[in-house]
Amino acid sequence: MRIKVILHIVGGLMVLLGFCLLFPAIVGLYFGEADAVDFLFLAILVLPSGLVIYWIFKSPLNIRYREGFAIVTLSWVIISAVGAIPFITTGVLPNYADAFFESISGFTTTGATVIMSLENISHTILFWRSLSHWIGGMGIIVMSLAILPELAGKMQLFKAEVPGPMHERLRPRIRETARTLWWVYLTLTIFQIVLLYLNGLSLFDAVIHSFGTMSTGGFSSRTLSVRAYNSGTVDWIVTLFMFLAGVNLALFYQALRGKISVIWKDAEFRVYTGIVLVCTLMITINLRLQVYHDLYQSLKYAAFQVVSIITTTGYSVVDYDIWPPLARWLLLLLMFIGGCAGSTAGGIKIIRVYALVKKCRLELFKLRHPRAVTQLTIGKKLISDEVSTGILEFFFLYILVFAISVVALTSYGIDIISSISAVAATLGNIGPGLELVGPLNSFAPIPDAAKYLLSGCMLMGRLEIYTVLVFLFSGLFRK
Amino acid sequence: MRIKVILHIVGGLMVLLGFCLLFPAIVGLYFGEADAVDFLFLAILVLPSGLVIYWIFKSPLNIRYREGFAIVTLSWVIISAVGAIPFITTGVLPNYADAFFESISGFTTTGATVIMSLENISHTILFWRSLSHWIGGMGIIVMSLAILPELAGKMQLFKAEVPGPMHERLRPRIRETARTLWWVYLTLTIFQIVLLYLNGLSLFDAVIHSFGTMSTGGFSSRTLSVRAYNSGTVDWIVTLFMFLAGVNLALFYQALRGKISVIWKDAEFRVYTGIVLVCTLMITINLRLQVYHDLYQSLKYAAFQVVSIITTTGYSVVDYDIWPPLARWLLLLLMFIGGCAGSTAGGIKIIRVYALVKKCRLELFKLRHPRAVTQLTIGKKLISDEVSTGILEFFFLYILVFAISVVALTSYGIDIISSISAVAATLGNIGPGLELVGPLNSFAPIPDAAKYLLSGCMLMGRLEIYTVLVFLFSGLFRK
Repeated sequence: MRIKVILHIVGGLMVLLGFCLLFPAIVGLYFGEADAVDFLFLAILVLPSGLVIYWIFKSPLNIRYREGFAIVTLSWVIISAVGAIPFITTGVLPNYADAFFESISGFTTTGATVIMSLENISHTILFWRSLSHWIGGMGIIVMSLAILPELAGKMQLFKAEVPGPMHERLRPRIRETARTLWWVYLTLTIFQIVLLYLNGLSLFDAVIHSFGTMSTGGFSSRTLSVRAYNSGTVDWIVTLFMFLAGVNLALFYQALRGKISVIWKDAEFRVYTGIVLVCTLMITINLRLQVYHDLYQSLKYAAFQVVSIITTTGYSVVDYDIWPPLARWLLLLLMFIGGCAGSTAGGIKIIRVYALVKKCRLELFKLRHPRAVTQLTIGKKLISDEVSTGILEFFFLYILVFAISVVALTSYGIDIISSISAVAATLGNIGPGLELVGPLNSFAPIPDAAKYLLSGCMLMGRLEIYTVLVFLFSGLFRK
Repeated sequence: MRIKVILHIVGGLMVLLGFCLLFPAIVGLYFGEADAVDFLFLAILVLPSGLVIYWIFKSPLNIRYREGFAIVTLSWVIISAVGAIPFITTGVLPNYADAFFESISGFTTTGATVIMSLENISHTILFWRSLSHWIGGMGIIVMSLAILPELAGKMQLFKAEVPGPMHERLRPRIRETARTLWWVYLTLTIFQIVLLYLNGLSLFDAVIHSFGTMSTGGFSSRTLSVRAYNSGTVDWIVTLFMFLAGVNLALFYQALRGKISVIWKDAEFRVYTGIVLVCTLMITINLRLQVYHDLYQSLKYAAFQVVSIITTTGYSVVDYDIWPPLARWLLLLLMFIGGCAGSTAGGIKIIRVYALVKKCRLELFKLRHPRAVTQLTIGKKLISDEVSTGILEFFFLYILVFAISVVALTSYGIDIISSISAVAATLGNIGPGLELVGPLNSFAPIPDAAKYLLSGCMLMGRLEIYTVLVFLFSGLFRK
């Protein structure tokens, strides 16, 4: 492992972070808020330090295999650590555990918050939180395109965004694809801003919620989240864009190039839509019978929360924690499933869950017909045994990390449902969970050590677990 | 599928069941109870019917591959269905859903009960419940030895009890091994009966609790379970024998043949002991700090409940449902882990969990050293990729069946913790769960349809899930 190479890249990313810090400063200056100064100062500190690190450790970009894990993990941690500073200097979150939690919750597009009331927070800080989502989302697109498939092709199902093997000489192609996907990401964000603005939100609120939606992060500028606007149209706009944000962005690109049918032909998209429809239907009926006496209201709430949770956004229009057991359990399951691969959504991912179910169905078939020759396919793609075993391992690792993290959380005396949902919601990059960490509460009452643990869950969830584990293990084993 | 062959075997098993029904009749006559007549009548009905079916459908015993799934599944269902009749005719459980639940809970060695107060029940019925455990345990030994490995070797880790490939000509060897293991089972049962009797239990109670312990079933003759005796010595005896019942019975046989060291050298036994010790320690500390102010009491309760749950017995000496979140969550996790392969315990099984953890560690190693040549081993045995993938699939299926069953249960409005623990406790063949189905409660308040669902969970858990699924699917697909 060459520390030099790692620092070179981290330095480069710090320069980018420095630039990003200027945006909240500009917003702050526009609103005439003192917090803008904090961001200006920090930018002035971070920009040159990043440049210096970048130049001192200048090295070729031929990243070695093992360095990749360190670079990805450290980048996310360091950027979150630096991004946490404004929360402290502005006095919003004087405790570093809180500030780091809020910052990594932003950059991992989780959206779990420790801030109890958002109405007391400056526009500058609110903008920074939401911008960290949006930047994080962009980072994930690059990572899932370029870095993860090279690091651990086996664990990934889809190298599909860039067809064919990935070598040095293909790098320009990755860059091009990344640029295309960013355009899709940007375009959808702008569309949503316009729509929300036309429907009564201030430009600022429209931007905040569009950043939160497209990154599937879920930070809001209101303590009540989307519920604060009390508008059916806004609810449905957010529902629609959350749904879109959970789709593989490459599909939109292909659709824009004229092949609209490609969307519906995509196996993952169909399963995703199917799960959303079935769960919405089940919860609508459950709510209509047991909570609300209005079918439309039940449907609106059910659709919003199902899409919000499965896409791992975490916005809410209602306190779903008071819903009946069936609805709450389905939401809890959706936290594990997550959105489509190639989107900014977290969780296990639709394509993996679909592949696992298909594989098990195939195995049951094989048990009945031991001599039959069969092969796992998704859409028209053959899935090799190596890839499907990799997915099974990923599933086991996910559940293992989940179970152990809940052990740690319950050891602080936090009740089981709160612990389960807190871990599921951070590991799946959703945000709010149930009970103690429900949609009307925050993660503030959790002890500091547990906040770091949950920060670790967010990171592991975002970097597909094994990236972080390999990095940790290489560190441990080298000694 | 030849219905004839299936009926032939089911007929044979009904003859055996008819004989077994005579035992509670004898016990009933000894205690002068009217319920004995019900069992006598049923035996008189079942014995000749079984014989007639056995003779009418007489056919060679060369069971075809696919028939195996049907035979195993149907045997357990039919025996449980017939075994449920005395609960109805004696008026103990007039509702068939209840009677069937109680009966299959017995034969699958689960020990979940719908009877609220055991003190009102005749010795005859109490003996029948416990005997069904003990018979079920014997059935499991045969099944895990002879039938399951042939049906689905891939999903099984251990054909180890009978080394080498299993063919027609090896059948005498299986029979011999089964007989040896039954001797071990019987000897341990007798030992425990004597020890319990010497420590103040009536002979009847000693038999009941030894049957419940060795089969890892957990039916008691007291509503308060083992707690009713309020004796530290009894608690520790039951703890010890539960622990032994969770061990691969083949190990005892080898130990008796002089190689005592074989026990400690066994990888699965070491992991099993390790998990028991670590969980006992964690819960002891948790209890000492938060519930009881006596270290010995905390240790005794923790050890008893950890062993009771991991071995899937389900006896209790304390209402562990009032314990703090950490202790309850650990017990919930232990419900999934279960005992060793080759024992009467249920759950996923130690050996599988251990293999999965080792496999994931190996994969993380491979990610760091992509060119390293590695191979999964347990003890000194090489585990093929096919077997380890089979275990991964089993794990996924287990979690999938769990998650879907909880959806069904919550749809009846049962709260999440109760639903989770009810499914975990039936699928893992433990018995009691938490809250609504906690150690001081029963499954009586659950709706009838949900009782059948949980009966299905017991069956699936006991027959390693895929046996039942393959049987169900072959039925569905044939149409």
